[in-house]
Amino acid sequence: MLPAADWSNPLRHPQDRRLPRIAGPSGLVIFGVTGDLSRKKLMPAVYDLANRGLLPPGFSLVGFARRDWEDQDFAQVVHDAVREHSRTPFREEVWQQLAEGMRFIPGDFDDDTAFKQLRSAVDELDASRGTSGNYAFYLSVPPKFFPKVVRQLKKHGLADPPEGSWRRAVIEKPFGRDLASARELNALVHDVFEPDQVFRIDHYLGKETVQNILALRFANQMYEPIWNRSYVDHVQITMAEDIGIGGRAGYYDGIGAARDVIQNHAESLLMEKLKVLKAVKLPEDIGAHAVRGQYAAAWQGGEQVRGYLDEDGIDPSSTTDTYAAVKLNVDNRRWAGVPFYLRTGKRLGRRVTEIAVVFQRAPHSPFDSTATEELNQNAIVIRVQPDEGMTVRFGSKVPGTSMEIRDVTMDFAYGESFTESSPEAYERLILDVLLGDANLFPRHQEVEESWKILDPIEGHWANHGRPAQYAAGSWGPEEADEMLARDGRSWRRP
Amino acid sequence: MLPAADWSNPLRHPQDRRLPRIAGPSGLVIFGVTGDLSRKKLMPAVYDLANRGLLPPGFSLVGFARRDWEDQDFAQVVHDAVREHSRTPFREEVWQQLAEGMRFIPGDFDDDTAFKQLRSAVDELDASRGTSGNYAFYLSVPPKFFPKVVRQLKKHGLADPPEGSWRRAVIEKPFGRDLASARELNALVHDVFEPDQVFRIDHYLGKETVQNILALRFANQMYEPIWNRSYVDHVQITMAEDIGIGGRAGYYDGIGAARDVIQNHAESLLMEKLKVLKAVKLPEDIGAHAVRGQYAAAWQGGEQVRGYLDEDGIDPSSTTDTYAAVKLNVDNRRWAGVPFYLRTGKRLGRRVTEIAVVFQRAPHSPFDSTATEELNQNAIVIRVQPDEGMTVRFGSKVPGTSMEIRDVTMDFAYGESFTESSPEAYERLILDVLLGDANLFPRHQEVEESWKILDPIEGHWANHGRPAQYAAGSWGPEEADEMLARDGRSWRRP
Repeated sequence: MLPAADWSNPLRHPQDRRLPRIAGPSGLVIFGVTGDLSRKKLMPAVYDLANRGLLPPGFSLVGFARRDWEDQDFAQVVHDAVREHSRTPFREEVWQQLAEGMRFIPGDFDDDTAFKQLRSAVDELDASRGTSGNYAFYLSVPPKFFPKVVRQLKKHGLADPPEGSWRRAVIEKPFGRDLASARELNALVHDVFEPDQVFRIDHYLGKETVQNILALRFANQMYEPIWNRSYVDHVQITMAEDIGIGGRAGYYDGIGAARDVIQNHAESLLMEKLKVLKAVKLPEDIGAHAVRGQYAAAWQGGEQVRGYLDEDGIDPSSTTDTYAAVKLNVDNRRWAGVPFYLRTGKRLGRRVTEIAVVFQRAPHSPFDSTATEELNQNAIVIRVQPDEGMTVRFGSKVPGTSMEIRDVTMDFAYGESFTESSPEAYERLILDVLLGDANLFPRHQEVEESWKILDPIEGHWANHGRPAQYAAGSWGPEEADEMLARDGRSWRRP
Repeated sequence: MLPAADWSNPLRHPQDRRLPRIAGPSGLVIFGVTGDLSRKKLMPAVYDLANRGLLPPGFSLVGFARRDWEDQDFAQVVHDAVREHSRTPFREEVWQQLAEGMRFIPGDFDDDTAFKQLRSAVDELDASRGTSGNYAFYLSVPPKFFPKVVRQLKKHGLADPPEGSWRRAVIEKPFGRDLASARELNALVHDVFEPDQVFRIDHYLGKETVQNILALRFANQMYEPIWNRSYVDHVQITMAEDIGIGGRAGYYDGIGAARDVIQNHAESLLMEKLKVLKAVKLPEDIGAHAVRGQYAAAWQGGEQVRGYLDEDGIDPSSTTDTYAAVKLNVDNRRWAGVPFYLRTGKRLGRRVTEIAVVFQRAPHSPFDSTATEELNQNAIVIRVQPDEGMTVRFGSKVPGTSMEIRDVTMDFAYGESFTESSPEAYERLILDVLLGDANLFPRHQEVEESWKILDPIEGHWANHGRPAQYAAGSWGPEEADEMLARDGRSWRRP
């Protein structure tokens, strides 16, 4: 039974999915091509797609940046990035074919000459490589430049597709820093692009394990019946990093963990769309159900690490959260009364992203030797990273006893079960952009709905005290433990 | 929710199970002490119980057989059996304490003198070892001797417990060869012993994995909700041996697989008691839902093996079944409409006992690339032997595809999850006899009910043709595959 209420089937697609999904004639223009994301993720993903035969022979890649590069300099940068970061083996003939379609446009975003050059390059590629006027513009740049870039694309006739072809814009988080700024940003982008031309990247949605949550629920008769308030006690979503902010002080300070991670990714891990986001309700007493923290200096993994306030570039009086935990309720038929606990943070015990569906205790233990209270709760843990897979925890009889029950786990690891290695999220997402498949991209309404959830929390925090301190390498501030303890629960130690 | 209908809690026991269950003052008398079972299972189990500290210090072991042995000869036989077959390490001090309580009575079952000697030995042990008059008599002898032995026990005042003590009789399968003979046997035994003095051994019930079926269902919130006709498509119970009849022609011929295994063990694997056995219904057309076979000569595992009819001691025109498969329905609220397929046989592909709960297909596939018909069904497989544990089969997304689903498995192995090694079934069962805990022993009503299920099948076979031939090392006759194929199902290849 699939209640229509929370199943909007983000993966349904009209074409027959058994046919390989191969992009048609097209090109990709990357703004901010010298950045980390571009080198580590986008360039390797383009190569890997080409290597898997999923790009058309004439596929072209155009870089745009403030560098004094020729096409061949750009191709060399892509080459090095591919050799270092691509997932699939390097094959010279694939590389050659791809490299022939590489162009570089030097210039900044105010530079009309550069955009004219871009326009010429696109026309030239249409002629020489058969890209047919189909282009995706990937804005791998800080959001403050979005308005300028999209306006330039408009001004130079690049935003509007020629008859029979398409133009698409790809933007990355952060999608604003609150509801108001998100709306403003959406308005600016939609001033130039129609909503169906805009692809907002949330790379979690491209991850295999997140995709697999849907498979688990709907391709299996075993899980769907228990995937609801009758059997689930609560859900814990953990997105933990063991590192600090590194060199990202400028981006991070003033944004914080809640905006950076919870707003941008949590709803994708819930794998639910607009209807469900609208059903998300904050508890009335926000102060008791939202905790923020800042990491403090401590020994972590044999290394003395600095506290957040001592990091380079951070204002020592900053109240930015490096840890955030919130409790959300989902007021629909399936989940009413089942709390969703979300936590994210930097400098936590280990890098892990997981979703734990924790089941109610068995209604009573028919076995005298194990009281129900002693039984741990069953749990299905979907491990998103780093060790993709699934763990099921359940009680089993201890051998040699009359009926003592102890928890055991069963494990499914992607790596062991499939010879196929998991494509990077960006491979999936770039291909989807080129195919015009918008299912895995949050729409502007979804972005705005999730800000509606976070804004009251940020508002509360702005007016109440400071983040609690937690030792680097720990699992967050005591207040977060207390938050669950008040509900008679505790955080998993992943 | 535990419907009272099929939960009679065979494991509940009034004492607090967290305290170690230690037998009180008592002794064990084994008739047929020179047999295989006695040497390979009973003697080692007694030692292992003593080694685990679960027997009282004065525990005594009396052997009865037609051998010209002294007590010390018997002790030597036990010693050798323990050294060869016991599960736990040999410890001299444990052995010494046990050996001091060993007595041997030479004689046959007609021999009044021998039983008088037994009576004296029991009295002497009560005095010297403090066994307090508590004795279990283990009849490890062919059933035809049961009447004689129990009458002798009666005649010599051994069956009736002295004030404040207990006497118990332990009997092994086969409990008759049909309903009439089972009733006759029960009547003979109950002529001497009260029903609560009689312990019928079905060693499957002592197995850890079988015990664990209960734990899975009732100690976990995850499994119980789907453990019923709403979600389960069918259940397959397989009890396969890869060997032939070995030297057991005399016992086996004329009995066959159905009586030997299905009658004696299948209901324990169903883990259900009288109420449920009474709900078991045979399909009306027995011929279409019961298949028997005989193994034929073939190459098996690089060895040419003989067919059943060529085995030593087997009548070449024998119609004894070495393979039997039946379909049963359980007409209660939980299982109505869910067929239980049972199969057992000798010279099958491999030695395995397992219970597979096979779930219905997901109601429809929301993923275009995987039609529902292509999805395998979810299954929970409880592996009873040889590799004790549990396997769960479910569908997972294939990495790199849009939404192709492929079956994967998760595994739980007893050996890997617990440092405790699994006690042998006989340890558990002998201890239960000494404790008077009858939960894991079929009562005579249950034995009779299971004959009521098998008798019509045997009756049908007696009047219809001969067993189908199947190649040794295969998975049984084609007719068994066809039986499931008619239901749109197929046997698992375990």
